[in-house]
Amino acid sequence: MVRVGNFFADLPDASGEEITQLLAAFPGARVERIVSQGQASPPDFWYDQAWAEWVVVLSGAAELLIEGEAAPRRLRPGDYLEIPAHVRHRVAWTDPGQPTIWLAVHGE
Amino acid sequence: MVRVGNFFADLPDASGEEITQLLAAFPGARVERIVSQGQASPPDFWYDQAWAEWVVVLSGAAELLIEGEAAPRRLRPGDYLEIPAHVRHRVAWTDPGQPTIWLAVHGE
Repeated sequence: MVRVGNFFADLPDASGEEITQLLAAFPGARVERIVSQGQASPPDFWYDQAWAEWVVVLSGAAELLIEGEAAPRRLRPGDYLEIPAHVRHRVAWTDPGQPTIWLAVHGE
Repeated sequence: MVRVGNFFADLPDASGEEITQLLAAFPGARVERIVSQGQASPPDFWYDQAWAEWVVVLSGAAELLIEGEAAPRRLRPGDYLEIPAHVRHRVAWTDPGQPTIWLAVHGE
């Protein structure tokens, strides 16, 4: 009835491709763990979501570009962003030398 | 437009009382940071929420008791639970010697 786990355990190998895992889904929200290792969004690809997202980097390092901003934001462990619906963004860089672990909360 | 911060920065002093801070609120979900240091739920108090909650301990140590279970669950960094609506629970213990930092996602 109560689902449990450890956010940092059983990390998948993301050296080949970024891996997204659904940790929880309930009325109003989805919680995901995303593991990246060196991936970035494809050139000219932008996420354009119909829902708001709150995302925090809990391990590793990444750069996220918000459309209209001059440079990507560098994200280190603990850094979070609340991205409103339809604010276009892309992952500009993730550290190839270690897993970057994101916790993402998607609204509806 | 994009709200940012660091989850581990500017920790409030929770040695006197547990402190809950709203990090994000958007359609479907609220994201909170809760800092405890030695507090527990009052005797015989149970959280009984009309919405589902996903909660992870990201620093420190705590014990959470789910109603009907024989003993509290010990939570260490990374340990998470998805608590369905109306599953009664209480905080049995938090480490008095260090801040325990929880990230809670409340659905609707």
